[in-house]
Amino acid sequence: MAFDALETPFGKVDRIIGGSATYAAWAASNFTQPIKQVSIIGGDFQQDEIAKLEVRGVEFEGVEVVKDGKSFFWSGRYHMDMNTRDTLVTELNVLEQFNPQIPDSYQDCEFLFLGNLVPAVQASVINQMKNRPKLIVMDTMNFWMDVALEDLKKTIAMVDVLMVNDSEARQLSGEYSLVKAALKIQQMGPKYVIIKKGEHGALLFHDKNVFFAPALPLEDVFDPTGAGDTFAGGFMGHIARTKDISFENMKTAIIVGSAMASFCVEKFGPLRLQEITDKDIEARINEFVELVNFDIVVV
Amino acid sequence: MAFDALETPFGKVDRIIGGSATYAAWAASNFTQPIKQVSIIGGDFQQDEIAKLEVRGVEFEGVEVVKDGKSFFWSGRYHMDMNTRDTLVTELNVLEQFNPQIPDSYQDCEFLFLGNLVPAVQASVINQMKNRPKLIVMDTMNFWMDVALEDLKKTIAMVDVLMVNDSEARQLSGEYSLVKAALKIQQMGPKYVIIKKGEHGALLFHDKNVFFAPALPLEDVFDPTGAGDTFAGGFMGHIARTKDISFENMKTAIIVGSAMASFCVEKFGPLRLQEITDKDIEARINEFVELVNFDIVVV
Repeated sequence: MAFDALETPFGKVDRIIGGSATYAAWAASNFTQPIKQVSIIGGDFQQDEIAKLEVRGVEFEGVEVVKDGKSFFWSGRYHMDMNTRDTLVTELNVLEQFNPQIPDSYQDCEFLFLGNLVPAVQASVINQMKNRPKLIVMDTMNFWMDVALEDLKKTIAMVDVLMVNDSEARQLSGEYSLVKAALKIQQMGPKYVIIKKGEHGALLFHDKNVFFAPALPLEDVFDPTGAGDTFAGGFMGHIARTKDISFENMKTAIIVGSAMASFCVEKFGPLRLQEITDKDIEARINEFVELVNFDIVVV
Repeated sequence: MAFDALETPFGKVDRIIGGSATYAAWAASNFTQPIKQVSIIGGDFQQDEIAKLEVRGVEFEGVEVVKDGKSFFWSGRYHMDMNTRDTLVTELNVLEQFNPQIPDSYQDCEFLFLGNLVPAVQASVINQMKNRPKLIVMDTMNFWMDVALEDLKKTIAMVDVLMVNDSEARQLSGEYSLVKAALKIQQMGPKYVIIKKGEHGALLFHDKNVFFAPALPLEDVFDPTGAGDTFAGGFMGHIARTKDISFENMKTAIIVGSAMASFCVEKFGPLRLQEITDKDIEARINEFVELVNFDIVVV
């Protein structure tokens, strides 16, 4: 949970709440409650943002508050091609001392999402769960492949689902073909690999099976910040609601995640996620159904 | 109809038949016959390649043979990212004098596909059709936007469906968003716009409706040459077979085109298209159904 400063071709904002856990919680809370948050924030994190999440069933016992510290801060700039961005500022602040302690009240969690972070910290959270969750989903990024590859591989070996983008899948596997990359990553541990391709959709791999979820073609992508975490939150929310970890149900979860991500990019930060209703979500999911629906042909 | 020399990360070939009309005819002939070809070739074009196409119901009355001329020749090199390529050699040869004459026996054609070529030549073919075909589909490329934009716009205004890739759609419309680009292109004339995104699939736009067809994730894209023309051939073949030009049926046509393109890239040139059977095609189309099939959820 953090603050971001964002600049896109459509405008800029100097300070808005962000962070993987914020986006994931906003997205998932449409489908499942309670959500047991693990994070670290400074005294600067607004109480009313916490209150808004609490109303949505997000619990904060696992969120450490460093009263005299500052929350993580990231500043970035996007260009017309929203798949690339320039990082302007990264201030770790309280995140530097993050050593998450999982409360007893969190031990009943069945579904665990590890947002992108130091792989050793992600592993520590898994190790603190006395009963292994039914499904552990992990996000990561190229940075950890560069600076902590061995730790990353150890953590990857502990999870069921790895989420990465296409260039990260290529870097991690050393394979250009995403089909081959996904097979290699499965050999590292995760039985399921989700490859996110931004505006080009997402792929789910499991054994030799593959599922493709499109991204909704939008008139404008206003701000892509948090889209990946929102996707993950929607995915986890659907899995937790249905308690079904089959490949078939993961397909639906990916559509739900894609629908949530398509809302996320419509406004700065999590603003759009904070205003949508169940009805909006249902209509959006139906747009995905329409988008890929076609009649079967026989030659 | 032409010769290509191709180099990809997987190998090279010094001389193989190619050309938009060759790929489109191979693909379409799986679904509809006869196919009335319009092209120009030199005396160097192999008789047995013509014979193979004739067996598939491809007619050559509209193909001019310049006995002492050489066929169009293109040489290119692809890198791991098959979406970009370097042109090494372009020899127009007989194409320089191409002034297609549409035979009387072609006047009953109901479906017309205009492969990428000088826009004025494409327009000349339309103008020679005494009865306007039920559906005119046009391919083009950025080169004509650079050197013959006014002619291109005139030709675009005459057709029903324009096929371009994503960067061409952006260049033609001046809009970055593909949704906005497709709306602007529709205002130029074509009621339907197909935006090809290579390994990321294809989009069909009509009014405010949009359909997305994925590309099949392949272990290797061996040689992408002709994939776009093969896509067009599969699309036209399905439309001609069903004689149904509705948006709903165009969705299916795009899946058929995508399936044909997924074969095309598996070997050099049109080699793979020359060996597949109806059974292969049916199985491949079913892979597309599986690839995007998911259960509908209600929140």
